[in-house]
Amino acid sequence: MKFKVAQEDLAQNLQLVQRAVSPRSPLPVLQGILIETTSDGLALSATDQEIGIRVLCPATVAEEGALVLPSRLGDIVRKIPFGEISFEAEAAGNTMDITWERSRFTINGFPAQEFPPLPEPAQAPAYTIAKSELRRMVRQTAFAVSHDDSRPVFTGVLFVFEGERVKFVATDGFRLAVSEGDLVDRQGDIEGEVIVPGRGVSEVSRVLGEEGDGQVKVSVSGNRVFFEGARERVVCRLIEGQFPPFNQVIPKQFVTKLTCRTQDLLDACERASLIARDVGQAVKLEINGSTLVLSASAPELGTVREEVAIESQGDTLEIAFNPRYLIEGLRNIDSEKMTYEFTGPLSPSCMRPADPEEADSFICVVLPMRLA
Amino acid sequence: MKFKVAQEDLAQNLQLVQRAVSPRSPLPVLQGILIETTSDGLALSATDQEIGIRVLCPATVAEEGALVLPSRLGDIVRKIPFGEISFEAEAAGNTMDITWERSRFTINGFPAQEFPPLPEPAQAPAYTIAKSELRRMVRQTAFAVSHDDSRPVFTGVLFVFEGERVKFVATDGFRLAVSEGDLVDRQGDIEGEVIVPGRGVSEVSRVLGEEGDGQVKVSVSGNRVFFEGARERVVCRLIEGQFPPFNQVIPKQFVTKLTCRTQDLLDACERASLIARDVGQAVKLEINGSTLVLSASAPELGTVREEVAIESQGDTLEIAFNPRYLIEGLRNIDSEKMTYEFTGPLSPSCMRPADPEEADSFICVVLPMRLA
Repeated sequence: MKFKVAQEDLAQNLQLVQRAVSPRSPLPVLQGILIETTSDGLALSATDQEIGIRVLCPATVAEEGALVLPSRLGDIVRKIPFGEISFEAEAAGNTMDITWERSRFTINGFPAQEFPPLPEPAQAPAYTIAKSELRRMVRQTAFAVSHDDSRPVFTGVLFVFEGERVKFVATDGFRLAVSEGDLVDRQGDIEGEVIVPGRGVSEVSRVLGEEGDGQVKVSVSGNRVFFEGARERVVCRLIEGQFPPFNQVIPKQFVTKLTCRTQDLLDACERASLIARDVGQAVKLEINGSTLVLSASAPELGTVREEVAIESQGDTLEIAFNPRYLIEGLRNIDSEKMTYEFTGPLSPSCMRPADPEEADSFICVVLPMRLA
Repeated sequence: MKFKVAQEDLAQNLQLVQRAVSPRSPLPVLQGILIETTSDGLALSATDQEIGIRVLCPATVAEEGALVLPSRLGDIVRKIPFGEISFEAEAAGNTMDITWERSRFTINGFPAQEFPPLPEPAQAPAYTIAKSELRRMVRQTAFAVSHDDSRPVFTGVLFVFEGERVKFVATDGFRLAVSEGDLVDRQGDIEGEVIVPGRGVSEVSRVLGEEGDGQVKVSVSGNRVFFEGARERVVCRLIEGQFPPFNQVIPKQFVTKLTCRTQDLLDACERASLIARDVGQAVKLEINGSTLVLSASAPELGTVREEVAIESQGDTLEIAFNPRYLIEGLRNIDSEKMTYEFTGPLSPSCMRPADPEEADSFICVVLPMRLA
């Protein structure tokens, strides 16, 4: 095995796969990165058996081969300056010589055969989504995923395929986020739902959704979902189970509705949360005509009162929330103005962009807290 | 007590004093920041009784007064946008009303009398040092301070006043750093030595040494050292005890001496340290004519060999070091070329800038490790 590679290409691609390495795996080979020569340069792969990442890296291959190297390779390559690095391993051996000008590293690896092969996507129906949409939809749902493993489906993001559209849905039982987007293309008919681990969607966004244009092909095969970009692939084990019927949670009517500048409400919530910062402390909202008053108090620290200019319809209302849930929802409303619908002081509330054209793109349902 | 203050001024000055707050002090008032009106705006003070910081902040005072507010005030002010903030407290009360446009915080504080007064500098002899020199000298010594409290003098930086010059010295028993600089001015005669806690010199550099010109006045009074800038003051309790006779540790002769580009040796050490990364692992230096070879090996990981172009005098030499000590010394040599003198494989080595004019500005003595 023998190849030359540009330092910057290798450093960047190692960084992409590194996150799937399992540093404390009892299987030492999974603490490494599989490096294979291909007709198109190198393939770098890592997996923790939940998530697998494979990227192609441009390289000049003089002699084919494959070897697993420890993930510290990434640190080493980062410390080498811009320029070409030579890699060479004897066919029978497990050590790689890495040379650059006046440096030589000899790194011990593992035979490639010991590395569990990453599953290949089958010829399954697939849809294609723009990277920018994927990034947005992951951002607008990943925050609402539960980190409590006792209810596995809540730790995932539900993907719902519906004709030309796709929805991502996440909930932790206290709030629900739904993000909807367009498909660019479909091959075959995918209908139905799968649940992708929250960590998986975040890695997909990181590996495949980086700034810039481009598209990602998504397909489901067996108990796995595949995401493929031009040079990157992420495979992710699905979560089994039944996602709660989320449509029933989204309020269809309201008793009070307000419209305001998203940033105004977000800023006010963030300031109020500095007082209501401890677990279980609420921020209170009083909606009355053209004014929303937010308030919070903490016994030792003091009190806060914020006014936000609003337009409102319906009844006056007093309602209390965990400020973090409001803030995380509001941060994901990308439009200048937003609407917030309330169904009563103890029942679900629903925020979304005010612009009717964007109103389906993102919805965040938040359950209130009981007023103290 | 009543004043108006620009958000950006207050946010910046609160950040400066915040580091002296002791968040877990059994004395709740020390978890706060003393705010006093002065003829020149506000004075903000915090202390953990080891270190005290006091800064002046421009403000428009309508009514005099003083109050201690919890340090979370800094978080609150940071979340308020650019613009003017009004503060008002009743003379008899301990709560402060903070208002800005449509927001109002009411924060519970402590009476100013409960706050231990920061000591005032006496009319003692003082010297003046340029901020840029102070920054450099702190950076070139703070890294070598010990974090082991069992030998308190090693946790401090020794200041040695000598006529028009001042030396900062730090050692942890394995390496010694000496940085020397010019005084701008002297009032009275200071001679002798004081030991300032390592944390203290770092805070001084942060509070008083920020980018830009300016001067700092340093004086010693009783068991305290005072650092005064135009609007900031840091007071720091001295460490008592006898600093080791550091001049005896600095080699006066050498058996081997090399000169090279500082960055070349630093880069090679940083790469070698990726292999010799575990505690007790050494990097080996072989000096022979115009070549320095660095090498290291780790049983599981592999080996590294680096060559650095040098000019050398004296004997060939093999010597081993903790790579971290080499790296931290080399990072503080500010000149393009450096010299490194060795007195033998088991005795102190000494690095410094190669330029004779800078050769006294920084010296780092490093003890070698026994070759495996």
